Amino acid sequence: MPTPNHAQAAQDSYFMMLAIEQAKRGQYTARPNPAVGCVLVQGSEVVGEGFHPQAGQPHAEVFALKDAGAQAVGATAYVTLEPCSHTGRTPPCALALINAGVKRVVIAGLDPNPQVAGSGVSLLQEAGIEVSVGILTAQAEALNRGFLKAMRTQMPYVRLKIATSLDGRTAMATGESKWITSPAAREDVQQLRAKSGAIITGSATVISDNPQLNVRSTQLGVVLEQIPTPMIIVLDRRERLSHDLQSDYHLCRHADTIYWREDNLHELLKMLVSKHQCHEVLVEAGASVAGSFLSQQLVDELIVYQAPCVLGSQARAMVDFNPLSLAQQLRFDYHSLEKVGTDIKLTLLPI
Amino acid sequence: MPTPNHAQAAQDSYFMMLAIEQAKRGQYTARPNPAVGCVLVQGSEVVGEGFHPQAGQPHAEVFALKDAGAQAVGATAYVTLEPCSHTGRTPPCALALINAGVKRVVIAGLDPNPQVAGSGVSLLQEAGIEVSVGILTAQAEALNRGFLKAMRTQMPYVRLKIATSLDGRTAMATGESKWITSPAAREDVQQLRAKSGAIITGSATVISDNPQLNVRSTQLGVVLEQIPTPMIIVLDRRERLSHDLQSDYHLCRHADTIYWREDNLHELLKMLVSKHQCHEVLVEAGASVAGSFLSQQLVDELIVYQAPCVLGSQARAMVDFNPLSLAQQLRFDYHSLEKVGTDIKLTLLPI
Repeated sequence: MPTPNHAQAAQDSYFMMLAIEQAKRGQYTARPNPAVGCVLVQGSEVVGEGFHPQAGQPHAEVFALKDAGAQAVGATAYVTLEPCSHTGRTPPCALALINAGVKRVVIAGLDPNPQVAGSGVSLLQEAGIEVSVGILTAQAEALNRGFLKAMRTQMPYVRLKIATSLDGRTAMATGESKWITSPAAREDVQQLRAKSGAIITGSATVISDNPQLNVRSTQLGVVLEQIPTPMIIVLDRRERLSHDLQSDYHLCRHADTIYWREDNLHELLKMLVSKHQCHEVLVEAGASVAGSFLSQQLVDELIVYQAPCVLGSQARAMVDFNPLSLAQQLRFDYHSLEKVGTDIKLTLLPI
Repeated sequence: MPTPNHAQAAQDSYFMMLAIEQAKRGQYTARPNPAVGCVLVQGSEVVGEGFHPQAGQPHAEVFALKDAGAQAVGATAYVTLEPCSHTGRTPPCALALINAGVKRVVIAGLDPNPQVAGSGVSLLQEAGIEVSVGILTAQAEALNRGFLKAMRTQMPYVRLKIATSLDGRTAMATGESKWITSPAAREDVQQLRAKSGAIITGSATVISDNPQLNVRSTQLGVVLEQIPTPMIIVLDRRERLSHDLQSDYHLCRHADTIYWREDNLHELLKMLVSKHQCHEVLVEAGASVAGSFLSQQLVDELIVYQAPCVLGSQARAMVDFNPLSLAQQLRFDYHSLEKVGTDIKLTLLPI
């Protein structure tokens, strides 16, 4: 028999899981705000739920309180991120929970945003509300890697995506590469793009493949128009793309495009956070750009879609990077592996 | 409620699974014989079980009958391979089952050995025993891929094992390669060696790495001495290894070693079956040998141990093979993927 404390912990985990499911509903649309979910519970019954759908719209707590109505009085609120304490585009959520008569608030993780950062919890506690912090923190934080990293370090969370063969090749020596991976893998990439405030590519990729780099999937569970269009950043240090040429590329048609002519990638990433609130960035480019990001240790997550084929030793390398010995290799941990269509998807985190 | 037929099928699957578990106990030691297991059941109780441990020892059925004693009368026998009908080193097992008074025999798959090939079933049926064939056939056959292929085609089942980085590299340009994959991956290779009648390598690998290519693991669940030592085949077309040199290599010390000086790999494989009863063969070599086996379509199973590291575009390629276009690529299906230590193990089957 679980002791009362165990029962409480189990119940807290369960309802926080439901709040995380709510948060996921906003994972492609809330940008640049974090995806947040809230569930209100009376006894063991859910009486209200909500999520933050879009910047400018009310926060998750407000939707959940509205859903619960009078049943919010004496309820426990499960929130995936610390309720805000400041008046931004919307009034502070901590206050809304207090005014609604909520008895207890369970929070997955604190909000590192300097405008919140613990003051939401203080506000609730000063009003006599019991607050528990730290339930399913890792699962909740996984939804907002970019927001959390940017608040803490002013740098975005960078995903590098590479599509490759079993023997680590991205194209034949001739450049032929359409398509190595399956339609299912390309569909999966749509999720990565939909999460990203910016997509970074290289001038070589634009010139050779002219990729659309857009979000066009109808399988993301949200109306496409609600997804903020990612900015496109073209690394064009050698100014291979003139302004006259730009209009020839599809990628310029539907998005803000920046041609980055400088060498400093760190500066670019910092600027994407400070000027454009791009907290999650996806790099989709060739071996040269991949090599630069990896060797400069700017990658937070490496995603490899690996097709079950061998393209041979003359085919193009996956990453331009030339360590002199094994000691200089780039090391990762396998975070997850899954089958996607006929390919596999490997997610790796740098050590 | 399951109908009686469903209940029978469920029971048959369950006890066949137990028979397969028995068969696995002989998977490293029964060579060149197949690994076979047998379970005897009265009602829903197991009354006897056995497996074939080694060539020259009694077959699985004999051990199970001995285990059951008088309880074999009226029992159902679950056997993972058709009982033999011929007198080889041991008397026919079909006869032993008949003489013991077994009522019903359930068989996973027929024995393609021309000396059996259905006559075991006939013998049982002629004695009035009810015979069911085809329960968990795929699972049972997975234990004896080499034996079954060799009986059907006179060619061995060939596994090609490659240890590689994430970007498909097996060594630095300098040749430095110890170790790319983890101890757990190298331990896993011991299973592949222990299953193999022969291990094929190349002269370049012998000269550069001088690998032991032996079975030395104490984690295989059997006493090492009971595992027949795999033969070593060194592909040495250019006669780089003189007879004087041979004694310098560890691999010559504990095993029969053949230096194959001809070009024809197909001939080699055929010879390994006809002359040496090597039904499963493991190829552990470099990019050149791997390329030959793959491009000549001699590989039945490709096993890739992939370490989570990037070695760069100057490092050594995984497979020497040069298709001119994507249309000439080698295609596979991912059969399984699993984490092994800090690496992943990919098992692929050619399309």
